Amino acid sequence: MAEPVRVGPDGPENDDRAGDDIGIVTPQEYTFGSVGKGVRLDSGKDFGPVTVRYETYGELNEDRSNVILVVHAFSGDAHVAGLHTPEDRHRGWWDAMVGPGKAFDTRKYFILCSNVLGGCQGTTGPGSINPETGAPYALTFPVITIHDMVEVQRILLDYLGIERVMAVVGGSMGGMQALDWAVSYPDRVQAAIVLASTARLTAQGIAFNAVGRNAITSDVLWNNGEYYGKEPPARGLSIARMVGHITYLSDESMGLKFGRKLRERAQYGFDFNDQFEVESYLEYQGGKFVDRFDANSYIYLSKAMDYYDLGERYGGLDAAFARCDSKFLVVSFTSDWLYPSYQSKEMVFSLMRNGKDVSYIELNCPFGHDSFLLETDRQTGILASFLETVYGRG
Amino acid sequence: MAEPVRVGPDGPENDDRAGDDIGIVTPQEYTFGSVGKGVRLDSGKDFGPVTVRYETYGELNEDRSNVILVVHAFSGDAHVAGLHTPEDRHRGWWDAMVGPGKAFDTRKYFILCSNVLGGCQGTTGPGSINPETGAPYALTFPVITIHDMVEVQRILLDYLGIERVMAVVGGSMGGMQALDWAVSYPDRVQAAIVLASTARLTAQGIAFNAVGRNAITSDVLWNNGEYYGKEPPARGLSIARMVGHITYLSDESMGLKFGRKLRERAQYGFDFNDQFEVESYLEYQGGKFVDRFDANSYIYLSKAMDYYDLGERYGGLDAAFARCDSKFLVVSFTSDWLYPSYQSKEMVFSLMRNGKDVSYIELNCPFGHDSFLLETDRQTGILASFLETVYGRG
Repeated sequence: MAEPVRVGPDGPENDDRAGDDIGIVTPQEYTFGSVGKGVRLDSGKDFGPVTVRYETYGELNEDRSNVILVVHAFSGDAHVAGLHTPEDRHRGWWDAMVGPGKAFDTRKYFILCSNVLGGCQGTTGPGSINPETGAPYALTFPVITIHDMVEVQRILLDYLGIERVMAVVGGSMGGMQALDWAVSYPDRVQAAIVLASTARLTAQGIAFNAVGRNAITSDVLWNNGEYYGKEPPARGLSIARMVGHITYLSDESMGLKFGRKLRERAQYGFDFNDQFEVESYLEYQGGKFVDRFDANSYIYLSKAMDYYDLGERYGGLDAAFARCDSKFLVVSFTSDWLYPSYQSKEMVFSLMRNGKDVSYIELNCPFGHDSFLLETDRQTGILASFLETVYGRG
Repeated sequence: MAEPVRVGPDGPENDDRAGDDIGIVTPQEYTFGSVGKGVRLDSGKDFGPVTVRYETYGELNEDRSNVILVVHAFSGDAHVAGLHTPEDRHRGWWDAMVGPGKAFDTRKYFILCSNVLGGCQGTTGPGSINPETGAPYALTFPVITIHDMVEVQRILLDYLGIERVMAVVGGSMGGMQALDWAVSYPDRVQAAIVLASTARLTAQGIAFNAVGRNAITSDVLWNNGEYYGKEPPARGLSIARMVGHITYLSDESMGLKFGRKLRERAQYGFDFNDQFEVESYLEYQGGKFVDRFDANSYIYLSKAMDYYDLGERYGGLDAAFARCDSKFLVVSFTSDWLYPSYQSKEMVFSLMRNGKDVSYIELNCPFGHDSFLLETDRQTGILASFLETVYGRG
């Protein structure tokens, strides 16, 4: 098995492969709505204006039947594959899966991904300027849900003239969105691919998110969310990321990768300069995250995940899935303890009780929750053949 | 199955049972050594003076052959059972296990427990006054190990005239000490009972400890450890405790206890006043911990656990256990993901390879790592019968 690239759910970071790639990609933006008018949120508020950053790969076919909507995870963004400039050192977060001949084959499919509402990578979020005040929203940004993210994606698809997607695919928080798509818009989703995800966040998941939010809000620099233009709450956000990172890995993969190795010493030094490799790795990841992520987005997006309970608005998961008209592919990973296989099986059994067309695969893989980003070889075979059963049969 | 009391590894907190208890207990203290002379630490330093706070339950028999040494977990203390005053609202952390007719039957056994070196419940630690400066040690306190804790206990036993213990018993960090006792002093330990523990901290365990330490040291009030007499780094310590608490529970037990229930609302309010029960529980636990624990002790004790690798000084676990002359009882719990059963099995297999007398039980129990504190009924039967096989056969 290949040595896993050291990543969070945001994708490979030191990937210098040259072949089969998507090349240079230019992000695009779509802005809709005006103050108090834009997207109707679950909270009842009508929110606007909203700018959506998105990227596309491949060509839309004539009858617009080859669209794959990729929905990203918590700390992901619209940049799924390729490079933004020739000098760009970082490929998109799922570059191994998107491109000519890859799972999402750009020779056949038109792939679209947008940054989620509440994010900080080009789509309107708490760090965006409120046109009414001329200042960042900060905590005046509305509390949003996974379904609100989907609503913004739906408005983007309307704008692009895409009535129906061949597939919506996402891992982790992306899987939550994919599920919401299939339930909210049965006639617009031909197939849903749900990787390492869940139909509702468990108490343990809420607990980890709560720790992350507490770490941020306890940082004196957080200043009740009003830190824009000043020094951000970097220590708090970094600790939140460290906790998150542990949950994305597994006991086994951390053991294989780091074990009990000290960073710079062969023997214990019996002072606080003794750092185990896993400590310095986490601190490095935490520190790096701060450069690209907004602490308030961490708070809003994690809250959206806490709220996530697919069956809640329909009176139960079975009733929610009864609405669906899509094919489903559900994939879980043996070492994923954040969204363990039993949570995928709950969905699968509910879909089966509803007589829906569902395939389920549990992959034996040591990389924990991050497996959906790292185990690209086996996923490529599985996803490519699943997509074959959907393509041209809409 | 009884509703578990809401606890951390420090024990039941709202336990108002009246019968079969140990009654009023008076903590005792023993001070030894002088500046630069006291206990020889793994770091090579000779450290003193050291005060040890300890409690005893039951009566030492004539030939001193009925001693059970209880060694406590990370946030535990010497107060295992009973009350300190008639008005005391909190019984000791393992009250359900120690008393007349209980697992550690005070009608037969003499039970002894001392607060660990580096702690903050009466034994010398970073919050103690350095007699050379008249100020608290803070970070000038020496970096210590699990074996150093055992050395202080050994010196206490010497002082009490106890040559050999019938059993040393501990869960979690207490299990680490019990193992170290059996390996370091084979002729002084008749039996070792190791609950929910490990022979070495894994990378994942180190990672969680690192997050806790980072939360503390990132709190501006921590002030490089120099906060005594001022406002302590309460937010940082509270976050460290929240993370720890999640690792002591299990996905299953949190689901059973809290599920996705909101604290004060029936419906989502879509604002940050929406708190799930599990969030408020964790924040409450974090906040309460601050009143009784010292942040620097958190740092020192967690570092001692990071260093813990029983086989390291002997060239491997098998070589370490080859030294032992004790009977062993190892207990793990199915839902304990902090020290999962496979880590107990590693010890058991190593002991078996060495031809040692070892019993192993894996208890199917949903309460996670805390099971060793909560699942007292089944443990009582198991431990009591194991102790019967040891008692009077020294």
